[in-house]
Amino acid sequence: MNGAHALLGTLSANDVTVCFANPGTSEMHFVAALDDAPEMRGVLCLFEGVATGAADGFARVRGTPAATLLHLGPGLGNGWANLHNARRAHVPIVNIVGDHATYHAVYDAPLQSNIESLAAPLEGWYRRTTSSDELAADAAAAITASFGPPGRVATLVLPADVSWGEVRTTPSSFPVATRPGTSVLDEEAMDVALHALRTKRTTMLLGGSLRAEQLQLARRVAEATSARLIVETFPTIMGRGANVGEVERLIYLSEFAIDQLKDTEALILLGAREPVSFFAYPDVPSRLAPAGVEVVDLVEPGADTSAALEALVESLGAPRVAHTAAARASAPSGALTTHSFAAAIGATLPEGVIVADESNTSGVQLFAATRDAPEHQWMTLTGGAIGYGLPVAVGAAVASKGRVLALESDGSMMYTSQALWTMAREGLDVTVVGLSNRGYAILNYELQRVGATASGTASARMLDIDDPTLELAALAASMGVPGTRVTTAEALTEALERSYATPGPTFIEVMMPKGLN
Amino acid sequence: MNGAHALLGTLSANDVTVCFANPGTSEMHFVAALDDAPEMRGVLCLFEGVATGAADGFARVRGTPAATLLHLGPGLGNGWANLHNARRAHVPIVNIVGDHATYHAVYDAPLQSNIESLAAPLEGWYRRTTSSDELAADAAAAITASFGPPGRVATLVLPADVSWGEVRTTPSSFPVATRPGTSVLDEEAMDVALHALRTKRTTMLLGGSLRAEQLQLARRVAEATSARLIVETFPTIMGRGANVGEVERLIYLSEFAIDQLKDTEALILLGAREPVSFFAYPDVPSRLAPAGVEVVDLVEPGADTSAALEALVESLGAPRVAHTAAARASAPSGALTTHSFAAAIGATLPEGVIVADESNTSGVQLFAATRDAPEHQWMTLTGGAIGYGLPVAVGAAVASKGRVLALESDGSMMYTSQALWTMAREGLDVTVVGLSNRGYAILNYELQRVGATASGTASARMLDIDDPTLELAALAASMGVPGTRVTTAEALTEALERSYATPGPTFIEVMMPKGLN
Repeated sequence: MNGAHALLGTLSANDVTVCFANPGTSEMHFVAALDDAPEMRGVLCLFEGVATGAADGFARVRGTPAATLLHLGPGLGNGWANLHNARRAHVPIVNIVGDHATYHAVYDAPLQSNIESLAAPLEGWYRRTTSSDELAADAAAAITASFGPPGRVATLVLPADVSWGEVRTTPSSFPVATRPGTSVLDEEAMDVALHALRTKRTTMLLGGSLRAEQLQLARRVAEATSARLIVETFPTIMGRGANVGEVERLIYLSEFAIDQLKDTEALILLGAREPVSFFAYPDVPSRLAPAGVEVVDLVEPGADTSAALEALVESLGAPRVAHTAAARASAPSGALTTHSFAAAIGATLPEGVIVADESNTSGVQLFAATRDAPEHQWMTLTGGAIGYGLPVAVGAAVASKGRVLALESDGSMMYTSQALWTMAREGLDVTVVGLSNRGYAILNYELQRVGATASGTASARMLDIDDPTLELAALAASMGVPGTRVTTAEALTEALERSYATPGPTFIEVMMPKGLN
Repeated sequence: MNGAHALLGTLSANDVTVCFANPGTSEMHFVAALDDAPEMRGVLCLFEGVATGAADGFARVRGTPAATLLHLGPGLGNGWANLHNARRAHVPIVNIVGDHATYHAVYDAPLQSNIESLAAPLEGWYRRTTSSDELAADAAAAITASFGPPGRVATLVLPADVSWGEVRTTPSSFPVATRPGTSVLDEEAMDVALHALRTKRTTMLLGGSLRAEQLQLARRVAEATSARLIVETFPTIMGRGANVGEVERLIYLSEFAIDQLKDTEALILLGAREPVSFFAYPDVPSRLAPAGVEVVDLVEPGADTSAALEALVESLGAPRVAHTAAARASAPSGALTTHSFAAAIGATLPEGVIVADESNTSGVQLFAATRDAPEHQWMTLTGGAIGYGLPVAVGAAVASKGRVLALESDGSMMYTSQALWTMAREGLDVTVVGLSNRGYAILNYELQRVGATASGTASARMLDIDDPTLELAALAASMGVPGTRVTTAEALTEALERSYATPGPTFIEVMMPKGLN
């Protein structure tokens, strides 16, 4: 048994049985060992940002980690942005970075670099394993660390000779990672929260992984106390649809968010941080809650909010809330607009679908339009690093075995479109909606928000991606995903329904109005 | 005048007049200021790895820096791998990373991360500017630092409020960066080198940027002393063709390189480091030169070798070397193989072309086949981070205004194919040859080299990219670059000739034998 076998054995023994991989020479023994580890599913990605984003999506859906397999510092660099998003999503990932053999590092060969420095800003866990005999224990430590809570990116650097070296004593069983215990309630914070709920204009801000049950508990608390219930702008994954009903979301635009929170006297944070502006803008405060607000940190970001919500419900004797869903709106017709696009999604969304939303400006009406759709889950861009949607959809599809709907703007899609190939190879049931508005529409808007005055063609050409026009459906087809282009709401509805009924991935290019919608 | 204007003014005043950009909200004032800086050419890239690779290619051709414009930590992450290659190429780059406003950083907004830690492994220069008034001086310092010698990546972090803040006193002129003086010869090393050349079996190993003139000087030294002249495996840019003649290159495969160097008693390094194995392999030494070899560090990597070579020629009284070029071989016919592919390139290569070579296993016969072609330049993958070829071709084309030929393997191409869009937008004269062998052919080979025994489908699927088949020409066409697919040597020759005669980019998909060639 060599180190690679011990590593794969430990991963599998701890139910880490998917590896999103983009291997190179230093990872060849890991790859070879896959032949002896049938319980491990290797999923090849053509770019590391796909592998790391897929691991994020997998963990959002399952709550448990997948592994990555990356190639030295440059591989980690290519995967870094989606690991940054995963860090902000507080999900567990076992991030395996192959490296030169231990004794080779001193020679500073071309691919050598300081991997530790590169990994440090992910603010997770890091270890460079140095012995084949310790690899199993190091892998178990990485899995333990990934769980947190909160969930985090655990980076295990794997030198080639540790992988190929023989393990001196074949273990009778592989080490078992420690899973987090049930979270302990902060009784003091609970008392403060209850007092606020009973006596002040209180807002409960929920964040992280929010299943329908948690939102229903939160609604009971809110209804029993007249508190306001708001979900953070970019939660990790959120239960939605007719079984959940309307849930207010913190508005992305700081000016509006400040207005949204202006009457709040107490802010109870449940898996969320005190909200701050996504970017700074001249003359707009960075903190969104009013000055002097009482902030109650009840559940830290990335931790499970269920226990705290149950305790609040119990303490308040908050009754069940009846919720009568409205019938969902019928399918739209006519031209494609942000409204008709959202309406078509809402009218067709199948039960149980998981949505990876990177629709950006094109998607501003989606939340309202899908409120009365059947039960589904919604994932968002937690860390702001665009190019997350297609990779996360890959991981979600591997994790769920159900249908995934990726809503993807053209500008964002071009960061990690290689994910389409993996969808085709693995036969994943992903419906990809590629939103073509031929511009970085959000930047047109942000340009005004930051107070920049631009009127020339030089600046306009930095925001416009219509010269040449990207042929999104053709791009998808070139990577093996059958694509179609739609120009009306009816055609979109029809294409969506056909896609949901067809196994494997499909791509729908939606021709939106150009630029800012 | 705001900070962004001062920055652009300083860049332009120092002849940094191209910016490869992928901006976001925090860079909007920089973008707006482009309207007032007509001397600055903004080149939009759809992915940061394209922007950084293009800056690398620009510097390889011009010897002077271009700027990048990246968006916070994730933007730097996405651009990191090609900056790693640029670091290994020792080229100057002014790497501008927009960031949150100075006062906003404390709030740890979603896109916040430790940019300094991310930039550190690039081992260049780093500064976070904190005042609009100091931005011009900081930009000049970045340009100075980028020049070196050796050339390096100078990362200037640009907080949004520094960009949008007004400069208190409009400068009468912008600060001037310091350019490196002529290099001072190490007289002691020169004496040792001369002694070795006169008395020992000596190998001169040349690296970095190697123009035809330097190679001709080196050949005079070699011929006058019976020394061996070898160029490092992956030089930054190298003059080649009938005016240069045959130049031996250090072999990539360590086992062969060790054999190549085995009789060397003295190794004179001119812009190269002592050669080491690209990867470690079980039972193969990391150092390629024989034990006990005398190593003479005559010119450090990234520094100009001309003065040392001229001094050697003078000290030795080395006469000019007559070089009679052979007529180049005629165009090949028949099936596409590594041989006929290389022959078609060699038979058609136009004078003055700059080659960005990422052909990997498909290109093993290219050097021999292009030896007698007209004068041209050749760029290689200096840092081993694949996905360099198309971005570097973008930068080289912007820098040279001549024809660029990108030779690109399918696996490598899929890392940064977004470069094709920028080629189309900018109307760059780039001929892209996409080599379709439907596999990570080099990994099939490396798997055996590292002694891994793999026989199953699980490992085979990590090395094979033929399921589904990538349609490379269609992919290029979807991004605005007209593509064609060829299946014979005659068709390849014809497509190359047509492409060289056609302004703007073209894409030729070359159907190579599957897998390892």
